[in-house]
Amino acid sequence: MIKALFAAGPDRWDTYASPLKAAFEGAGLEADLRQDFAPEEVDYIIYAPHSDLQDFRPYTRCKAVLNLWAGVEKITGNATLTQPLCRMVDPGLTQSMVEWVTGHVLRYHLEIDRSVALQDRWLPYVPPLAEERPVTILGLGELGQACATALTRLGFPVSGWSRTAKDLPGLSCHHGTNGLRDALASAQIVVLLLPDTPQTANILDSNSLGWLPQGARIINPGRGPLIDDAALLTALDIGPVDHATLDVFRVEPLPEDHPYWAHPRVTVTPHIAAETRPLTASRVIAENIRRGEAGEAFLYVVDRDRGY
Amino acid sequence: MIKALFAAGPDRWDTYASPLKAAFEGAGLEADLRQDFAPEEVDYIIYAPHSDLQDFRPYTRCKAVLNLWAGVEKITGNATLTQPLCRMVDPGLTQSMVEWVTGHVLRYHLEIDRSVALQDRWLPYVPPLAEERPVTILGLGELGQACATALTRLGFPVSGWSRTAKDLPGLSCHHGTNGLRDALASAQIVVLLLPDTPQTANILDSNSLGWLPQGARIINPGRGPLIDDAALLTALDIGPVDHATLDVFRVEPLPEDHPYWAHPRVTVTPHIAAETRPLTASRVIAENIRRGEAGEAFLYVVDRDRGY
Repeated sequence: MIKALFAAGPDRWDTYASPLKAAFEGAGLEADLRQDFAPEEVDYIIYAPHSDLQDFRPYTRCKAVLNLWAGVEKITGNATLTQPLCRMVDPGLTQSMVEWVTGHVLRYHLEIDRSVALQDRWLPYVPPLAEERPVTILGLGELGQACATALTRLGFPVSGWSRTAKDLPGLSCHHGTNGLRDALASAQIVVLLLPDTPQTANILDSNSLGWLPQGARIINPGRGPLIDDAALLTALDIGPVDHATLDVFRVEPLPEDHPYWAHPRVTVTPHIAAETRPLTASRVIAENIRRGEAGEAFLYVVDRDRGY
Repeated sequence: MIKALFAAGPDRWDTYASPLKAAFEGAGLEADLRQDFAPEEVDYIIYAPHSDLQDFRPYTRCKAVLNLWAGVEKITGNATLTQPLCRMVDPGLTQSMVEWVTGHVLRYHLEIDRSVALQDRWLPYVPPLAEERPVTILGLGELGQACATALTRLGFPVSGWSRTAKDLPGLSCHHGTNGLRDALASAQIVVLLLPDTPQTANILDSNSLGWLPQGARIINPGRGPLIDDAALLTALDIGPVDHATLDVFRVEPLPEDHPYWAHPRVTVTPHIAAETRPLTASRVIAENIRRGEAGEAFLYVVDRDRGY
């Protein structure tokens, strides 16, 4: 009997216990899922970063720590964690990110805020076609690639940027510092889908924001620290940034006195762009336990050096 | 050097001169585009029905008259026009409809108005995935099918309705009066893309609006007369309709005193969902000139007997 410790908090237990058990059964696993075991008995840890479990040393038998979320930045620095750590790549999360990003790109593209606000005048405004609206996605992981595919299908010319070189069909791919400059210089809409690492912190700062063309719009469903907030506020006030839609922040909930709330050209959304869906995420956890038991390679193992 | 006369009016010259020249270059044509030539020199006439040019007899060398608009009813009766006449079938018009419809469906799906308006509170709202949001499209012509394809690719379950039976892959197709009831009964979002004919007038009336589930949203980029306006206003006030986004109206511009303007759950847009686009229309013109020079058949030649 596999012993799977659920260490993602008691409130999430109510949401996840039953889909996890169903997924284990669906994967043909005989597994005991509980919130408490003697540490030395545990085979797998199902984890969320805010868990009370921070010292992994007693879990001597544990084959893998399976994160329920995509973000692992709060745990990669934990020196007691020596087991393989797997990120969550939830098809439901990816899908919701694609829907959210596509919706907000089209909102900017079609000037929907103006359509909704301008309810007193017949003032035709015809936007360019999507093919004349270049979009740049920073980050070409699972989420960035899925959003790029959806936007490309709608006709947008999509450029992508990643730290290391990638070559993806249908995308204009850039990398490195010079590549970032090129990727931003042509972008009318920028979508941030990078992980939060020391290398990506403040990737949009006063320097790189200056590479954007006048009137650029920024969409950040990625991570709060990707943006230097003071630099963005300046770029909104004196250019070149026209508007920003921000879903993630350094401190969440965003403090009441944060200037983003009151800024007329910022839309704050409360970290809703992408959520892990219990049904689909539980299947990913079960598949990784199945792989571990069969001696196969785990999916989505985090490279502790790169931090994701 | 090909001589192409632009006879669609001086104001359109400003819009079309540069995309036409770019399209000629893209098609490998050495063409001189001007608003004035000696008539006997002209190889092609780029035309709009309100042009001053009404006597085509002096254009003895002209191989074709290429209309910038889809509608040709104002020119087919002109007896001096003996050259081939080509309609405009602009892929940009279909594309702009797809972008506009997809944008407004996602706006409703993601509750974007609420996100934009609610700039004082951190109140997470997670919408269902697209696969849980049924969309119904009334009208399965060129535009309806293109929108259905785009929405299906994003994950929405799409139903379509047409007067006569159709069978289209990936769509749940309905037809006739009973079919309309079924198509509306499951629709959380309804998109109207029917033509304006005696049979489709007031297709959304007090009767059919009553078939919608509570909270339904309506998007009309098709034709104004498809909706019984008084019935829609009632359905907005007492249910089941939650919100309507209307781009077309019986009288345009929509009169200032029309109740749609002031209604808190109606978005009026000024007939902008789909327009002929200079960029893509210019490419159609260039392709027809290329065909004329290569001795190939023209695209979209009007049958003067049928009138289209």
